[in-house]
Amino acid sequence: MSKTTRIAVTGAAGQIGYAMLFRIASGEMLGAQHGIDLRLLEIPPAMDALRGVVMELEDCAFPLLENVVPTTDPNEAFADVDIALLVGARPRGAGMERKDLLEANGAIFTTQGKALSDNASRDVRVLVVGNPANTNCLIAVNNAKTLASNQFTAMTILDHHRAVAQLAQKTRAHVQDVRNLAIWGNHSSTMFPELHSATVKGIDALDLVTMNWYTDEFIPCVQQRGAQIIQAKGTSSAASAANAAIDHMRYWCTESPGTTSMSIVSQGEYGIESGLVFSYPIVCHGGQIDVIQDRVLDDFAQQRIKLTEQELIEERDAIRHLL
Amino acid sequence: MSKTTRIAVTGAAGQIGYAMLFRIASGEMLGAQHGIDLRLLEIPPAMDALRGVVMELEDCAFPLLENVVPTTDPNEAFADVDIALLVGARPRGAGMERKDLLEANGAIFTTQGKALSDNASRDVRVLVVGNPANTNCLIAVNNAKTLASNQFTAMTILDHHRAVAQLAQKTRAHVQDVRNLAIWGNHSSTMFPELHSATVKGIDALDLVTMNWYTDEFIPCVQQRGAQIIQAKGTSSAASAANAAIDHMRYWCTESPGTTSMSIVSQGEYGIESGLVFSYPIVCHGGQIDVIQDRVLDDFAQQRIKLTEQELIEERDAIRHLL
Repeated sequence: MSKTTRIAVTGAAGQIGYAMLFRIASGEMLGAQHGIDLRLLEIPPAMDALRGVVMELEDCAFPLLENVVPTTDPNEAFADVDIALLVGARPRGAGMERKDLLEANGAIFTTQGKALSDNASRDVRVLVVGNPANTNCLIAVNNAKTLASNQFTAMTILDHHRAVAQLAQKTRAHVQDVRNLAIWGNHSSTMFPELHSATVKGIDALDLVTMNWYTDEFIPCVQQRGAQIIQAKGTSSAASAANAAIDHMRYWCTESPGTTSMSIVSQGEYGIESGLVFSYPIVCHGGQIDVIQDRVLDDFAQQRIKLTEQELIEERDAIRHLL
Repeated sequence: MSKTTRIAVTGAAGQIGYAMLFRIASGEMLGAQHGIDLRLLEIPPAMDALRGVVMELEDCAFPLLENVVPTTDPNEAFADVDIALLVGARPRGAGMERKDLLEANGAIFTTQGKALSDNASRDVRVLVVGNPANTNCLIAVNNAKTLASNQFTAMTILDHHRAVAQLAQKTRAHVQDVRNLAIWGNHSSTMFPELHSATVKGIDALDLVTMNWYTDEFIPCVQQRGAQIIQAKGTSSAASAANAAIDHMRYWCTESPGTTSMSIVSQGEYGIESGLVFSYPIVCHGGQIDVIQDRVLDDFAQQRIKLTEQELIEERDAIRHLL
């Protein structure tokens, strides 16, 4: 074991945290060479449940797991962490407006951004999973004054995987046959799953499906997949979200198997307003995230991308006082 | 990818199933060389939830996952399966006597034993996780007339891991420093976690702890760990049980890292009544499960082992008409 990696997970007793921790501790995120030191943050009412989760982690006798610290204090949770998975967020309650939701989460991610800035490893990699993930990430990065903006990301790999799976099913291919698909914009119902550069077994995806299927079935299916799963299961996506977070961080720390999708702080790529946390087609290698810069986008794609950008601008404007 | 392994999981929409499926599909049980074909069995009221789980499996875009079949029919679920993880079982309801519980599960495991016998691969490996696991396994193996008794096992690795973790904590060692511990007997409150041959960093465990700690703290802690977790979390162990099932099957299909514990159909080893499904110290190698035969057991240990054997005899006698 060459190195111990310290990993913070917030909302650690929630369903996504629960689905994630055991896979992290078994080595699925970073491989069998990394010892794991887990820092688990929860709110006080969830500490009993978190204690049970810690007992279950102990009861796995994971060879790689060296330490587990449960805490309610963000400064303790983020002390010297190499990786921070910000999973916990305030869910939308009954009668809650979008603005109320942004505001409630604003308080959480302001605090956590500052705590990361004050305490985390100078090389920390941050992934925001808790929704509204892009704007939560925007708040966190703007409150982390001593860290660089490229250390903060929000998750759109779940949407990417959902889109890959739908296209593979439609074309009777395996998920590994699908390449170069991308998710653009916000992790919300305005996201744009783009097929213009995608291929299936080397053939252009848009030569394999109709535009009607693309616009009227595929895009809405990917956008509304989370709601469909809630309808079937009665609970929201947990294991698939946890899986996406693990893949996101593994790709970032090592390399991605080709093109994937991540939300990063825009530097203005493709004309998007700088500073927004925006999902782009991405390639990871050598521990870096690179935006794929040479996508050709037709009017339809550009219009969809403007729409999701506009939503992110409105979200930002609603919490501008927190930046 | 050299081979596709077909794996049945019963109770697939339950909490343990949910914690297990995504780790199996990611390759944690069998490694990255095996394609995975999942056969998921549930009862009709759980099929909507199972549909949601299947959607989430799709949404992971697992490279190894080649097929997923949800079904309510055991004959379909077990057709040509290489591995069967019998997770689903009837939990104890309010006011339910132990005999009622055994009887309710008897119906399930009679059916599943027959369905495995009629449909599974001739080399199928079966692990019973659903409680009362040992006696459920006894019923299944006795109803699987065309399969060999050494193809059936019940899970005590969770208890083994729990015991390892407790001893490691007590001696301030890492779990990997603990060797040769064993769980004997029934996966129930009579199980005997044995330290007589255990070592920590090569030192006899019983030279490192007092007999009082061993008998009054360690043994009850391991026996009652499941109840303690329910008390903390409000729900029973799921991720740690799933982890144990994955380890059990990985060890069996490849090899175990030293001594572990599994419940197998006794051939009379250590004087235990033949035919009972009993947990022993085990080593796995080359796809085989071998009982460690040379343990020296003092009067205390033999007395504890008799106690848990007696419980298994009583459970068997209560469902003898099903064998």
